[in-house]
Amino acid sequence: MKRFAFILAIFSAVCCQAETGYELWLRYQPVSNAPYATQCKQVLRSLQVYGTSPTLTAASTELKNGLKGLLGISLPLGSNGSVVLARPENIPSITPAIKEKLAKAGREGYIIYTTTINGSKKTLISGNTDQAILYGVFHLLRLVQTAQPVHSLDLLSVPRSPLRLLNHWDNLNRTIERGYAGFSLWQWNNLPGYVDQRIIDYARANASIGINGTVLTNVNANALILTQEYLLKVKALADVFRIYGIKTYLTARFSAPIENGGLKTADPLDPTVRNWWKQKVDSIYQLIPDFGGFLVKANSEGQPGPQDYDRNHADGANMLAEAIAPHKGIVMWRAFVYSHTSDDRFKQAYEEFKPLDNKFSSNVLVQVKNGPIDFQPREPFSPLFGAMPGTPMMMEFQLTQEYLGQSTHLVYEAPLFKEVLDADTYTKGKGSPVSSTLSGFAAVANIGNDMNWCGHLFAQSNWYAFGRLSWDHQLSSEAIATEWIRQTFTNDPAFVKPVLHIMMRSRELMVNYMTPLGLTHIMYNGHHYGPMPWGNTLGRPDWNPVYYHKADSVGIGFNRTSTGSNALSQYAAPVRQQFENINTCPDDYLLWFHHASWDHRMQSGRNLWDELCYRYHSATDSVRQMQQQWNALQRFVDTERFRHVQQMLAIQASEAAWWRDACLLYFQTFSRKPFPTGYEKPAHSLEYYKNLHFQLTY
Amino acid sequence: MKRFAFILAIFSAVCCQAETGYELWLRYQPVSNAPYATQCKQVLRSLQVYGTSPTLTAASTELKNGLKGLLGISLPLGSNGSVVLARPENIPSITPAIKEKLAKAGREGYIIYTTTINGSKKTLISGNTDQAILYGVFHLLRLVQTAQPVHSLDLLSVPRSPLRLLNHWDNLNRTIERGYAGFSLWQWNNLPGYVDQRIIDYARANASIGINGTVLTNVNANALILTQEYLLKVKALADVFRIYGIKTYLTARFSAPIENGGLKTADPLDPTVRNWWKQKVDSIYQLIPDFGGFLVKANSEGQPGPQDYDRNHADGANMLAEAIAPHKGIVMWRAFVYSHTSDDRFKQAYEEFKPLDNKFSSNVLVQVKNGPIDFQPREPFSPLFGAMPGTPMMMEFQLTQEYLGQSTHLVYEAPLFKEVLDADTYTKGKGSPVSSTLSGFAAVANIGNDMNWCGHLFAQSNWYAFGRLSWDHQLSSEAIATEWIRQTFTNDPAFVKPVLHIMMRSRELMVNYMTPLGLTHIMYNGHHYGPMPWGNTLGRPDWNPVYYHKADSVGIGFNRTSTGSNALSQYAAPVRQQFENINTCPDDYLLWFHHASWDHRMQSGRNLWDELCYRYHSATDSVRQMQQQWNALQRFVDTERFRHVQQMLAIQASEAAWWRDACLLYFQTFSRKPFPTGYEKPAHSLEYYKNLHFQLTY
Repeated sequence: MKRFAFILAIFSAVCCQAETGYELWLRYQPVSNAPYATQCKQVLRSLQVYGTSPTLTAASTELKNGLKGLLGISLPLGSNGSVVLARPENIPSITPAIKEKLAKAGREGYIIYTTTINGSKKTLISGNTDQAILYGVFHLLRLVQTAQPVHSLDLLSVPRSPLRLLNHWDNLNRTIERGYAGFSLWQWNNLPGYVDQRIIDYARANASIGINGTVLTNVNANALILTQEYLLKVKALADVFRIYGIKTYLTARFSAPIENGGLKTADPLDPTVRNWWKQKVDSIYQLIPDFGGFLVKANSEGQPGPQDYDRNHADGANMLAEAIAPHKGIVMWRAFVYSHTSDDRFKQAYEEFKPLDNKFSSNVLVQVKNGPIDFQPREPFSPLFGAMPGTPMMMEFQLTQEYLGQSTHLVYEAPLFKEVLDADTYTKGKGSPVSSTLSGFAAVANIGNDMNWCGHLFAQSNWYAFGRLSWDHQLSSEAIATEWIRQTFTNDPAFVKPVLHIMMRSRELMVNYMTPLGLTHIMYNGHHYGPMPWGNTLGRPDWNPVYYHKADSVGIGFNRTSTGSNALSQYAAPVRQQFENINTCPDDYLLWFHHASWDHRMQSGRNLWDELCYRYHSATDSVRQMQQQWNALQRFVDTERFRHVQQMLAIQASEAAWWRDACLLYFQTFSRKPFPTGYEKPAHSLEYYKNLHFQLTY
Repeated sequence: MKRFAFILAIFSAVCCQAETGYELWLRYQPVSNAPYATQCKQVLRSLQVYGTSPTLTAASTELKNGLKGLLGISLPLGSNGSVVLARPENIPSITPAIKEKLAKAGREGYIIYTTTINGSKKTLISGNTDQAILYGVFHLLRLVQTAQPVHSLDLLSVPRSPLRLLNHWDNLNRTIERGYAGFSLWQWNNLPGYVDQRIIDYARANASIGINGTVLTNVNANALILTQEYLLKVKALADVFRIYGIKTYLTARFSAPIENGGLKTADPLDPTVRNWWKQKVDSIYQLIPDFGGFLVKANSEGQPGPQDYDRNHADGANMLAEAIAPHKGIVMWRAFVYSHTSDDRFKQAYEEFKPLDNKFSSNVLVQVKNGPIDFQPREPFSPLFGAMPGTPMMMEFQLTQEYLGQSTHLVYEAPLFKEVLDADTYTKGKGSPVSSTLSGFAAVANIGNDMNWCGHLFAQSNWYAFGRLSWDHQLSSEAIATEWIRQTFTNDPAFVKPVLHIMMRSRELMVNYMTPLGLTHIMYNGHHYGPMPWGNTLGRPDWNPVYYHKADSVGIGFNRTSTGSNALSQYAAPVRQQFENINTCPDDYLLWFHHASWDHRMQSGRNLWDELCYRYHSATDSVRQMQQQWNALQRFVDTERFRHVQQMLAIQASEAAWWRDACLLYFQTFSRKPFPTGYEKPAHSLEYYKNLHFQLTY
């Protein structure tokens, strides 16, 4: 009967224009608040565009389509429009006040300003480039989507970072490494002759949140992308992205001079190699004059690199940097390395890169993952942030949920990003947050060709949040989530409030049902889905879960204090001291830094074992609450999207219990303590969980 | 400037509800002919459904949604409806006339019949099963979509074949072998907890054209699908498909008893192996009581099979058949084999299977590709059709365009299918067409998760045509294309007529710009895209283009007459005799059967070389005409779909010229004859084409 009820439930979703999630946050549905719509229509009556360019055409088209959907109006285009798009040199009788604002706007900032031009009231959207004006148009549309007043505006918005990039780990066969949302958007075999609508919509979505660069290819790179045949395909994409202010970047396989060029070496100090790269770069810029540059993963997880020739990372990066510098391109060199021996993988990136500070050319940035290990539910910030003051640094976040439940768990990641960005490195004294050490932002994309782009509908919020935070990292997670909910669903507070609640707690819940108290990397081998804290069969110690939790009869956790691996020495003294002292180390990071006794008294007053049980159980219970909260919201959401999230939450709830039971039963074999009373009993035995063959086919 | 014009052109496609092609032929757009709409509304006023089942619910939902879109009405559901859905036992005061019709309808046939029930005029849709009624609903909707009268209907439609299956060559990692439309629809990692809307829409589309079975997995099979973990996922899909009358089938990897069962052998005569399969089959039917059965590729291209144990195909098939027979399942055993040595690959399937006639169990069907080689633009029918009268045969067509331009060429395949089905085998005397030798239809699907399902919008017509032909192979290609155009675009004859013209000639053009006069398999190695008639580097002779065309200074073509490989001896005498005699062999098949002199006089009066030049050139010119014809139709089509097809046709036109130039320049090195005057000169040298590295990344 249950199945039959499900089957009947699906029918209402069958209709001609089903809600697929394809529109993302650019839904432009009719404004339901009639007085507000009237107010908007009074202000946004007509459009005047000064100047012509593809980008201005994109801006005016977006505004017209947006307002057509939101207000049901066809915005007439002509002279004396009530909305004016113009660069400063085109604004009629520009005032000193406007000039002054625009002087602060830089290349990408914009103003939205209610003013009087030629005697009539106008909404002026201006910036020093057409790209900035496009950003302003998306901002105005967002105001209408989220029901904000538009009759008297005085906004100046300037990005706090010049580099706001997506990194696509997309292979040329269209599979996506760690992708959970379908195939790659780049249809290499149909390019350059065929560029599909989705490419345009991808660019629109990025421009709407300020993303201004995209690395098309996997960091585990294929040199084929650097052949002329493929560069012509890249050019076809770049020609669309340029309109939306998005620069195109590629990953550079370090051995390309051998694979593509037929050379015998890729030694970065070899003149023929250097010349090969110069020629290659020149040929790229002939096709793509605003090509952004290269992202490189070298000497990491089997990728070739300068160390193959006894050169260091700086030698490699600088060779590429020299080739690309005449064209104003950049090189983003990843610090995710752990190929040499060390007693603690945590320390390796720092050990390898810190000595190279000041050795990189000025157009090289070192790109560092947010934490020292690998995109875990919670990590302390990487000690490299602030540690290389003579080297520009980029943050690398991961939107795709490799370790965060992949396509089926609802996790709003902005709190994770903010936690890292706001962490104080103390590298220039108190008040040196990670954000202050950065010259740019990158995030591994969670985008594929699934109808809704991101697999899980709520994963769209992470793409959205990354764009908004890379523009302004001071925005709050709540503010961003609220914008996203309103644009994606409805402005009704009876919906916005509970969904905001679900989103804001989701990441902490995930930490607690997967890896509470600083547990790390206890996921399944390979696919990284589901719990495998017992894993100890892989060839390298630091690929195995037991390496990370070090549970034994005494306690659990990785001692990184001075009595252990001393990884904490890589941090500035105040950070190190706080983590080093088990009494000041926050419980959330305890097992990252200490091998703590099962009887260790936690800040809650519970002992460690009881706290572990409490966290796993309460988080699992809370996921079930999330399910109930969502179910109570059915009346606000179309059947299709409602059912999508409902099914996903059911999976998440059952998998939270799986995590809880598998981990607690396993750790109990070390703690030898009973489960506190009052908790739900494990559904199965530890052997059952160990024998589960969760065979993912990525 | 050209690029700029393109860029401006794309903007009009940016809108809230862009046409993506997702709706397929089930678009249900408002009827534009007002008098016709009024007529429909008079007849289709309300709905009455006798009985309850998920399938009847699907039928009534489809009808309500369809008429809401087409006529803008909300069809009230209740007693005394003007449209009645009922099985015969539920029809009030059923008449002998209706009973008689339904007696002919079988399990899947249906009637749509305007009649009087309880004193009022009704449109009765009836059949002996709910599945049949669902088919009838789709038929009624098609009538409205294509603007046919609905006020006085007396239709009986019965499928001519009981097996109408799609074969998905989908891998468990969601890549699709020879797929050009994205990732697999089956989201294995999210199943069984998450079943997305697309699964339902896939089932709707299939039901609308009578497809009643789907093989989910690649014939190059993975035994993982037969584990309990994956069978639970299959069940979740089957539970949806069942509602729409679609049975679920899987491919069976012959070595699964070893890989999954831990046995030491997969010998089909081994009792433990036989028992393993029985147990496995029983466990499948516990989950999926109407499971359809297995499709098997064995001892072909590296797949394991009974010959690994010195058993034959019948031994292997019958072992599976025995296990599945108690559940009424079937085994479809593919005849695509060419692993043993032979002087001519053409002959191998026949040589291997013909001796096994009458050796297969009654629930085994031998599934044969339409031609003796491999889904070429034109092949003679396989000599196996009609050659095994004691064995049920299934036709295997290929919808996905492996050798037919893949995702970028517009090729309507119904004429290819009809050419094969209508070919006379003479195996039971004159009038024994291939269609009369068949017990079922299968087609390798062209479906992926691209927004429009099939990559090329017009590739949807091939999915549509296969369904319609497998229901009734006597339908004409023109009639099917006309239905599809009207449902997919518009009923306006100013659009329908030229598009029908484009579709109807498209396959013959492709033959002529790729492989005219019976040339075969001269595509690139591996990916099979583009011309490589010079290919002679692969390990087996019969993988190389030169094996197939055998061009030399004397002539070109494969001598399969009695002076050559004598493959023609596999046909019935009248067929053999026609092909054997170079003067009666149709020009379209000449090089399939004869090594003909460059001076051979063709039916056109030209010599062979001149005819080859003529075919390549005229077909290429015609593709350019297709482009122009499409461009003239812009006013009938939304921007997005118009631009999609326009870009694809531009690729097709340039690639037709590539085929023409590469092939003619190459064959000229043998013919040593000049190009006839008046033709366009080749754009490049032969060396240029040979050095093109067209690197596809499938």
